[in-house]
Amino acid sequence: MKYVISISREFGSGGRIIGKKLATKLGVPCFDRTIIQKTAEKSGLSPDFIARAEERARSRFHWTIAPLGMGSPAFATQNIPVSHQAFFAQAEVIRELADQGPCVIVGRCSDYVLDDRPDCVKVFIHADLESRVERSVHEYGIPEDNAATYIHQMDRGRANYYNYYTGHNWGDMRLYDLTINSTTTGIDGAVDLIVDMLRHREEREKAAIQF
Amino acid sequence: MKYVISISREFGSGGRIIGKKLATKLGVPCFDRTIIQKTAEKSGLSPDFIARAEERARSRFHWTIAPLGMGSPAFATQNIPVSHQAFFAQAEVIRELADQGPCVIVGRCSDYVLDDRPDCVKVFIHADLESRVERSVHEYGIPEDNAATYIHQMDRGRANYYNYYTGHNWGDMRLYDLTINSTTTGIDGAVDLIVDMLRHREEREKAAIQF
Repeated sequence: MKYVISISREFGSGGRIIGKKLATKLGVPCFDRTIIQKTAEKSGLSPDFIARAEERARSRFHWTIAPLGMGSPAFATQNIPVSHQAFFAQAEVIRELADQGPCVIVGRCSDYVLDDRPDCVKVFIHADLESRVERSVHEYGIPEDNAATYIHQMDRGRANYYNYYTGHNWGDMRLYDLTINSTTTGIDGAVDLIVDMLRHREEREKAAIQF
Repeated sequence: MKYVISISREFGSGGRIIGKKLATKLGVPCFDRTIIQKTAEKSGLSPDFIARAEERARSRFHWTIAPLGMGSPAFATQNIPVSHQAFFAQAEVIRELADQGPCVIVGRCSDYVLDDRPDCVKVFIHADLESRVERSVHEYGIPEDNAATYIHQMDRGRANYYNYYTGHNWGDMRLYDLTINSTTTGIDGAVDLIVDMLRHREEREKAAIQF
């Protein structure tokens, strides 16, 4: 079966662990933070700068402070701000990874970057605030009294970043084949649902070929 | 298992047939247009007036033309516009149906009306425009050259109606446990995914009781 699964997710929804478990179940690689290192190599920008792109996007003024003409010489000669260089290089990395074979890619606007691939299956994971606070505190060590604010800030960063580069609305379900509230299904339940969806999709494709 | 499944849907996405098939599979009743008749009985308004509420909402001026003080005497004495009387009576009918036992309820803001019930599971069905046009032409007999416009108008009506009464954003995936692109899964695939989701939800509830 030919597919690339893009998983987008709210902060603290368990989307990353769902991506990892899904990849293990399907026996394919999961690309998440590894994309940052590959993007750094391609662009000449620091991994930290690339990793913090969404974080910077929390502020509505983030684009105006991007310095010009640094990073990769190829981009620099075109006067492209480094934030944009990071995005373009990352998009290239994502497309190269998808070309290598079936895989799971978590976040990084991969749903948009791979939108022209008919084999790209798009999933969005969200969750109730209560579960997200719990996960943030226990898995990411964020102080409990600050967790809800932190979650909202992270989501705002992801939304700003996504909306800016894609022109779409982050979290618009029409962009996805499946969106799941992981509070309802649990992590393993969400993994199962994605596998089931893949199976149904494959059956439909086979049927379409027959007729 | 205790549940009420609310299915919201884009026009032409197959949401209604998914609701019916799901109900058959689960052996529970599916309430769709039957809600209109029950609402008519409760409110004294005509079934046609109730059925066309979303259609009227296509125009942004729809609320201003609602005549005052007609319909049910109980509402009339409070000077509530008949459109609102229809909504309130319908909400009452939906709550009564949900009280009777497990069932599937299609549309009519049932996700919002039943939001305070922890046993309410919310699903939204959408689909690619191409599939929706095909379904509109072959199942609803809408002329092909007019189908895309008609679909957009119907969706706008549903969105206006929903947003007005609920204060939420129609189609915001965060309101739903599961959203499915039925073009990806097919009708039967969507039914299966909803059943799977119910099962995972039940397993989680059982586990929560044990601990």
